[in-house]
Amino acid sequence: MADVILVLNAGSSSLKYCAYDAQGDALRLVLRGSLDGLYTSPSFRASDASGTEVETRQWGDGTELGHGGAVAFLADFLRGHGEGHTLVGVGHRVVHGGVRFAQPERVSEELLSELDTLCPLAPLHQPHNLKPIRILAERRPELPQVACFDTAFHRSQPEIAQAFALPASMTERGIRRYGFHGLSYEYIASVLPGIDARAAAGRTVVAHLGNGSSMCALVAGRSVASTMGFTAVDGLPMGTRCGSLDPGVILYLISELGMGARDIEDLVYRKSGLLGVSGKSSDMRVLLASDDARARLAVELYTYRIGRELGSLAAAAQGLDALVFTAGIGEHAAPIRERVCRQAAWLGVTVDAAANDSGATRISEASGQVGVWVIPTDEELMIARHTGALIDIGAR
Amino acid sequence: MADVILVLNAGSSSLKYCAYDAQGDALRLVLRGSLDGLYTSPSFRASDASGTEVETRQWGDGTELGHGGAVAFLADFLRGHGEGHTLVGVGHRVVHGGVRFAQPERVSEELLSELDTLCPLAPLHQPHNLKPIRILAERRPELPQVACFDTAFHRSQPEIAQAFALPASMTERGIRRYGFHGLSYEYIASVLPGIDARAAAGRTVVAHLGNGSSMCALVAGRSVASTMGFTAVDGLPMGTRCGSLDPGVILYLISELGMGARDIEDLVYRKSGLLGVSGKSSDMRVLLASDDARARLAVELYTYRIGRELGSLAAAAQGLDALVFTAGIGEHAAPIRERVCRQAAWLGVTVDAAANDSGATRISEASGQVGVWVIPTDEELMIARHTGALIDIGAR
Repeated sequence: MADVILVLNAGSSSLKYCAYDAQGDALRLVLRGSLDGLYTSPSFRASDASGTEVETRQWGDGTELGHGGAVAFLADFLRGHGEGHTLVGVGHRVVHGGVRFAQPERVSEELLSELDTLCPLAPLHQPHNLKPIRILAERRPELPQVACFDTAFHRSQPEIAQAFALPASMTERGIRRYGFHGLSYEYIASVLPGIDARAAAGRTVVAHLGNGSSMCALVAGRSVASTMGFTAVDGLPMGTRCGSLDPGVILYLISELGMGARDIEDLVYRKSGLLGVSGKSSDMRVLLASDDARARLAVELYTYRIGRELGSLAAAAQGLDALVFTAGIGEHAAPIRERVCRQAAWLGVTVDAAANDSGATRISEASGQVGVWVIPTDEELMIARHTGALIDIGAR
Repeated sequence: MADVILVLNAGSSSLKYCAYDAQGDALRLVLRGSLDGLYTSPSFRASDASGTEVETRQWGDGTELGHGGAVAFLADFLRGHGEGHTLVGVGHRVVHGGVRFAQPERVSEELLSELDTLCPLAPLHQPHNLKPIRILAERRPELPQVACFDTAFHRSQPEIAQAFALPASMTERGIRRYGFHGLSYEYIASVLPGIDARAAAGRTVVAHLGNGSSMCALVAGRSVASTMGFTAVDGLPMGTRCGSLDPGVILYLISELGMGARDIEDLVYRKSGLLGVSGKSSDMRVLLASDDARARLAVELYTYRIGRELGSLAAAAQGLDALVFTAGIGEHAAPIRERVCRQAAWLGVTVDAAANDSGATRISEASGQVGVWVIPTDEELMIARHTGALIDIGAR
């Protein structure tokens, strides 16, 4: 009878999942998919490890499945699908672990209460992340659950890397640079020793370039700095987020343009970045295929800011032994990787155009002093690993 | 009969001045000083080029001298002091030249109208900078005046260095990275060829570290990037300003702490930076002399952020041939220079401790690949030069 670990990532209207067959230390993906449109027009899909679709379902427009209905449906589906499988634990992606949580945590009522207090730090994500945890805690109180935080990996950063130059009273209220995408960086750090042992022991910058984009400096596998700050809007420009912005701009938007906080939030989170600059799309594939001047400007600005942040992160790491590209754009947009590498020549970064275009893992020149790598990230596997470790399958 | 060029720098309640004797291309400082407390308790002081005080005056508490009275007093004083001198032109420091002005400009009614429209971009400085220009234009319409902009020098930056990742409509409204301290950087760029010819033709980062602090990357003497952005609050932490701040922090201050725009402005401009972090002082000398943990943290955070920005600016310049320290802290705080240099060792930066402590101009090791220099800045002389060039003394 095989043990199954379920990984859940809940958004405001979606529930993504992966199911892993846990055999000792090995974790084998058996199913992945999502439930979307939970409050409007729900749909379900499931694929096997090879990506072959094994099930889809569509509810009628106006159906409110909700997070509760989604969790129930998923549990039923997995029971029906996984003949002879036992669900032994559920791992959750939780965006915010605050100052305290530098590691994943077993879910308890106390933990949930503490994570609730962090909702103001990530109001768009944290409450939704917690919903399926509470639902499962009520319906299956005996089922071990683990919360894995997007911020936890960055708690190894020195205090000055996490601090804004604000009064201590603000820092004590939790206004500091948390950093995000930590599960992605932790996964990369976990596989890097097998790919580039020198860099894994040394100084690596990882560029997690997706719809949300950030970068992280690793020294000996630990985060020493990252581009995202208090929220996931800081740092690099992203699909629809502006990235770094002079605080004086916000004051100007309020005092001169009469904008309110919600309008500004909408601007910086949903109308800026690649979409805002191009006026066309937040999708890098669309922009790379366009010869429109504003689309080109958006792409140039994106790569330029990556170059500036690479310099800043190399400073945090005191140099650069390797550069790793990961996530959607990082794994698939060869022209972006090429531009980033060419403008980082001053750091010793090289790019082998043929390797880069062909999807090789190593894309730096053989003689290059900085290893440049394309490594697919796997945040879900990272969560499954943490979950397996914390529920102590071996001891069951 | 000697020609005199007067340089004015007007703040909200002060008027700083320098008077230069213009003999052909040479400019010789003859007097400098300030009028302070213009609306509360005015005082006047004047020193000669050697720094020896030659005159002071104090008005009674509650006296409203105002900018008009200050200009009139100064004109009278100079007339009385400068036997046989003729005032041939006045150069003004004006914080904002917007997108359009990449050079100093002769003052005209049209220019003043255009500069008025930039007041919303620098409401704390621009209106005050313009006051003495208008006063002199009314009282001495025949006197040539020149406006020199703190932003102008940065207009050579590539478009992507000046852009935020905001919608084009915002960029067109003027929301972009202007950069400031341009007259200081321009002065350094003007003297660098005589100090380090290779760096002047190559890649230099200038750290203007004062109560306001910023850094600028020069390539072949032209600005390619700088740390200050839309306003002078962005970039490095400063005496009382926070520097770079996640825009999400401002949204949090509004929505969670209920702060208004004026409170936030007060926080980020006047209660943060060295003062906010240390809880003690905005004065680097006080902090360096303290062994309080928070004072140390403030100093560490300041130098750490300089190190991060140095990496980012080296990326903009595609490498580093020289690092220049200037302005109050840059010229006088040897321990700050030493820390910055040591943490920039990864860039090839070195520091000769004896040279650094003794106030030498070159403080890098003789074998260092990056020249490290301490060069006193002189924004007033830069304004006087521009003024002399634009009023065309030779042609008079």
